[in-house]
Amino acid sequence: MDAQPVDQEAVARAVDAIEKALGADAVLRSRADLDEFRDPFWVLGSDDNDVAAAVLPADVEEVRAVVRIANEFKVPLWTVSTGRNYGYGGASPRVPGSILVNLSRMNRVLEVNSELGYAVVEPGVRWFDLVDALEDHGGEWWSSIPDLGWGSVIGNSLEYGRGHTRIGSHAENVVGMEVVLPNGELMRTGMGAMEGNRAFHAYPFGFGPMVDGLFFQSNMGIVTQIGWRLMKRPEKYASCWIHFDGDEIIVPVIDAMRELMLDETINNYPFLGRGVAANAEGQPDLDPDSQKWALRFALYGYDEIVEAKWRIVERVLGAIPGVEIGRKTYDGTDRAGPLDGIHDDKVQAGIPGMELLDLYKVPFGPDTGHLDFSPVGPLIGAEVLKMIRMVRSMYEEFGEPYAAGCMLLPTSILVVSVMFFDPKDAEKTKRIYDNYDPMLKRIAAEGYGLYRSHIFKMDAVAATFDFNDHAYLRFVETIKDAVDPNGILQAGKQGIWPRKLRAQR
Amino acid sequence: MDAQPVDQEAVARAVDAIEKALGADAVLRSRADLDEFRDPFWVLGSDDNDVAAAVLPADVEEVRAVVRIANEFKVPLWTVSTGRNYGYGGASPRVPGSILVNLSRMNRVLEVNSELGYAVVEPGVRWFDLVDALEDHGGEWWSSIPDLGWGSVIGNSLEYGRGHTRIGSHAENVVGMEVVLPNGELMRTGMGAMEGNRAFHAYPFGFGPMVDGLFFQSNMGIVTQIGWRLMKRPEKYASCWIHFDGDEIIVPVIDAMRELMLDETINNYPFLGRGVAANAEGQPDLDPDSQKWALRFALYGYDEIVEAKWRIVERVLGAIPGVEIGRKTYDGTDRAGPLDGIHDDKVQAGIPGMELLDLYKVPFGPDTGHLDFSPVGPLIGAEVLKMIRMVRSMYEEFGEPYAAGCMLLPTSILVVSVMFFDPKDAEKTKRIYDNYDPMLKRIAAEGYGLYRSHIFKMDAVAATFDFNDHAYLRFVETIKDAVDPNGILQAGKQGIWPRKLRAQR
Repeated sequence: MDAQPVDQEAVARAVDAIEKALGADAVLRSRADLDEFRDPFWVLGSDDNDVAAAVLPADVEEVRAVVRIANEFKVPLWTVSTGRNYGYGGASPRVPGSILVNLSRMNRVLEVNSELGYAVVEPGVRWFDLVDALEDHGGEWWSSIPDLGWGSVIGNSLEYGRGHTRIGSHAENVVGMEVVLPNGELMRTGMGAMEGNRAFHAYPFGFGPMVDGLFFQSNMGIVTQIGWRLMKRPEKYASCWIHFDGDEIIVPVIDAMRELMLDETINNYPFLGRGVAANAEGQPDLDPDSQKWALRFALYGYDEIVEAKWRIVERVLGAIPGVEIGRKTYDGTDRAGPLDGIHDDKVQAGIPGMELLDLYKVPFGPDTGHLDFSPVGPLIGAEVLKMIRMVRSMYEEFGEPYAAGCMLLPTSILVVSVMFFDPKDAEKTKRIYDNYDPMLKRIAAEGYGLYRSHIFKMDAVAATFDFNDHAYLRFVETIKDAVDPNGILQAGKQGIWPRKLRAQR
Repeated sequence: MDAQPVDQEAVARAVDAIEKALGADAVLRSRADLDEFRDPFWVLGSDDNDVAAAVLPADVEEVRAVVRIANEFKVPLWTVSTGRNYGYGGASPRVPGSILVNLSRMNRVLEVNSELGYAVVEPGVRWFDLVDALEDHGGEWWSSIPDLGWGSVIGNSLEYGRGHTRIGSHAENVVGMEVVLPNGELMRTGMGAMEGNRAFHAYPFGFGPMVDGLFFQSNMGIVTQIGWRLMKRPEKYASCWIHFDGDEIIVPVIDAMRELMLDETINNYPFLGRGVAANAEGQPDLDPDSQKWALRFALYGYDEIVEAKWRIVERVLGAIPGVEIGRKTYDGTDRAGPLDGIHDDKVQAGIPGMELLDLYKVPFGPDTGHLDFSPVGPLIGAEVLKMIRMVRSMYEEFGEPYAAGCMLLPTSILVVSVMFFDPKDAEKTKRIYDNYDPMLKRIAAEGYGLYRSHIFKMDAVAATFDFNDHAYLRFVETIKDAVDPNGILQAGKQGIWPRKLRAQR
C-alpha cells in the first residue's frame, strides 16, 4: 500500500549477516517458504505485504543477534510469535520488504509452577503445547485459551486477545516479562528486574513504573518469555447458555449479565453471538438477517458453589421473557471424552481445538477469507444493541454472510464482527476492505474505538484516537524514538512509526 | 542527604511566575506553612527534605501552567496528591529545594457511574470524600480503601497501595487516566485516547501499547483524573479471622490460604499480623517476641454463597491444629452503627476510618515515628515464615516495638514491617534509618524485592533491581529523558533520575 521505504540492498546484506550468525537453517528466502507468511486472506496485489526473508532464532541470544544486526544495517524487522493473527493480517508485516522474525522455534514451556499456578513460556509455545504440558504436570491447572489452539500464548496475549474462562483477559494473565529491547539489551520487568527474584511471576508489579504495558500491541521490544497465570481446576464446571429470538431481548439480557458479572455470580468471560455462539453441534447460522441469539457462560467451583450460583442465574436470566436457559455440567477432571468436539464446552474448560476454523470455512469453502471489525463499548444493553445494529447496517449492502460474536467483560464488550469473503473474488474483497474506512469513521463518531485491527487499517484506526490532537500517539512515538532510534522494530504497528518512517502514515 | 542540585534563584523566579499565573492564594512560602509538608517522622537534620515553596493548582489548566513554568525555568517539581505517604517520607521531595505541587485542591468526584460501577476522581479526593459521594449516590457501590481514610485515592493507587476488599489491588482498579505530561501536554490513556469515547473507564486497554503503568511510582507525568473501579454492595458480608500461637503455624496457614484464594473461595485480600491484625478491640500487641498471630479475611455475596464458602473455609482452616476460627456477619447495608470503631470489619467493608493512626501512636505517644520496610515474596508458607524471621532477626537488636503486617495476594505477599521510633531520640532514629541498608542487602540477597520505600532509600532499593546491569532502570531512564528532557518532574523518584541529575544517585 505504501511506497517501498526499505533499502532492499541493506536488507539483503543484513539477511546474510543473520545467516552467518544463526546458521543457514534459520533463514528462509524462497518464494514458496515466504508465501507461508502472507496474510492468508489477501490475494489482491499480493506483493503488498511480502517479506524479504524470514529468520527463525532458536533462543534469546539469537534474537539479540538479529536485533543487533538490524541496527547495524538499519533495516526493519517484523516479529511474530507463530503468526496466527488471522483476520488481522496473519504474519505479514506493516512495511513491505521487512525481515520477518518468526519465533516459532522458541517453543519451550520453561516452568510449570504447580504451587503458585503459573507457567513460564516462550513465544513459540502454542495453546496446544501449553495445555499438553499442564496435563503432563497432573492436570491440576487450566489455562485460558482462545477459540483456536494453534496460536501462540504470547502472541495472542500481546494483542489483547481473549479467552473464555475466568482468567480470560489474557493480557492480565501476563505476570513478569523478559524482553529484548530494540537496542539488543535484555530486560526483565516487575520483580524480575532483580536478578534471582523469587516473586518474578507471582507479584504483578515492581519497584518503579510498570513498563510491561509498553510491549502490548507494540513495537518497543521482542518479548521472549512471560509468566502466565493459570486457573485451579475446579471441582465442577457448568457450561451454561441462553437462547432467544429477536434483537430487542439483547437489552435486558446484557443488563442482567452485567449485574451477574459485577456481583461475581458469573466470573468467566461470556460470549454472545449469532449462530457461531450457539451451544449447538450443528452448522453456524450466518444469515445476516437472523435474529436468533445465543449467549454462553460458565460457572466453576465446588459443587455447592456452582449449584448456588446456578439457582441465582436461573432466577435472574430465566425471568426475562423469551429467554430459554440451559446447562451441561462436568467434573473438573472431565477432559477428552465428555467434551470432545463441543467447542463451547471445551473453550470454557481450557481445552484447545480447531473447530472454529471449520465453521469459518463454511461460507466459501477452504479458502474463505474474513476481515474482523471489532469495536469496544460499555456493557449497557441499549448501547450494545445500538452497536450491533450499526455494524449490521453497515454490512447490509453486501448481502454476504458475517458473524457477530460479542465478548463480554464485566463493564465492557467487544463487538467482534467478522465479514466473510472469497479472496478469489477480487472486486468484492476490495469492496469489503474499502468499506472498513467509512465504518470506522461512523463507529468512532459514536464514541466507540477498535480493540485491534488489520495491518492495512492500523493508521486509520490510530487516527481515530484523537484526544488533544493525538496526544497519546505523540507520547508513544516520543518513547519509540528514544528506545528504538534506528526505527528497526515493527514500524507502523498500531499506527506507531519511528521518526524516519512517519511519512509512511 | 545530597548536595543541593537546585538553582534556588531560578526556583524563586519560577515561584513568582506561578504566583502570577495561579494567584497569591495558590502559593505557600512561609516556614510554618511549608513545615506542614515535611516528613512527619523526620527531625534529624530537618532541612534534608525541605521544599522551596508549595503551589496548589485548582484545576488541570493550572497544573499545565505550573509544568510549563517549571520547564521555562528548568526547576524541579515534586507532586503529591495529599501527601499522606506516611512511613515513606510523607509529602517531602527527593530533591531538597524542589517546588511542591500539592493537588489537594483538585478534590472533585467528577462522576459516579452507578450502572458500570466506577467513579472518576481527581487527585485531591480522599477516601473519606469518595465514600461520602458513594453514599450520596445510594450506597450501592463500595470502594476499596486502605487503613487510613485521610489519604488520596489517586496517590495511594499510584504507589501500588492496597486495600482489603475483593478489589483491594488498587493499581488494578485504575481504568483510564488523564495525565499532564512533563511538557505540559494533556493526554488520556486507554480508550480515552479517543475524544468522547464511551468506554474510557469501562475497558482496561486501548489501541496500541498501554502507557498507564508508566505513571505508577513514577516521574513521567502528573495524573489529574482516573477512573476507579468499585465493588457492588454484597447482600451479605462476613468478616472472618483465625488466631494462632506460634510462628510455625504460619506455614500450613499460608499454604491453605493460597489454595482458598486460588480457587476463589476467599476473594478479598487477607491480612496476617501480629497484634495490629487481630480482630480485637484492644491494644495492639507490639512485643517483638510475641508469637500470637491473627489473620483476617472476608467473604462477600448472596447469603447462600457466603454460607457455602464459610463451610469450606471452616473445614480447611479449622483442620489446622492450633487454629481458632471465627466470624461476624453483616448485611451489605450495615454501615455506621454495627461496624463503628471495629477497624478490621470496617476496612473490609470499604468504610474509611482513622483507627490505625491511634494504634501507631501507642509506642511513643502522639509523635511516634515509623519506618516501613516492605519486602515481597511468593505466597508459600515456608518462604513467608523465613521472610518474617529474617526481618524480625534484623530488628531484634533494637529491642523496640515493631509491627508485622502481611498483605496476602493469591500468589504473593507483602511483608510490611513497621519499625517504631521516637523522632526526638536522634541517635536511635538515625540507627533505625541506617539499619535499613544492611537489611535491604540481606533481603535482596535472598531474592526478595521491596514494593515501596522511603524517599531517602529509593536509590538503594533501585540498586537491588540489578538484572543485566540494571537494564530496567536504564530503560526507564531512557524514557524519562525523552518525555522530560528538562528533568523537571519528581527527580529521583524510585531511583529514576533525569540525565542532568544522575550524579545525585
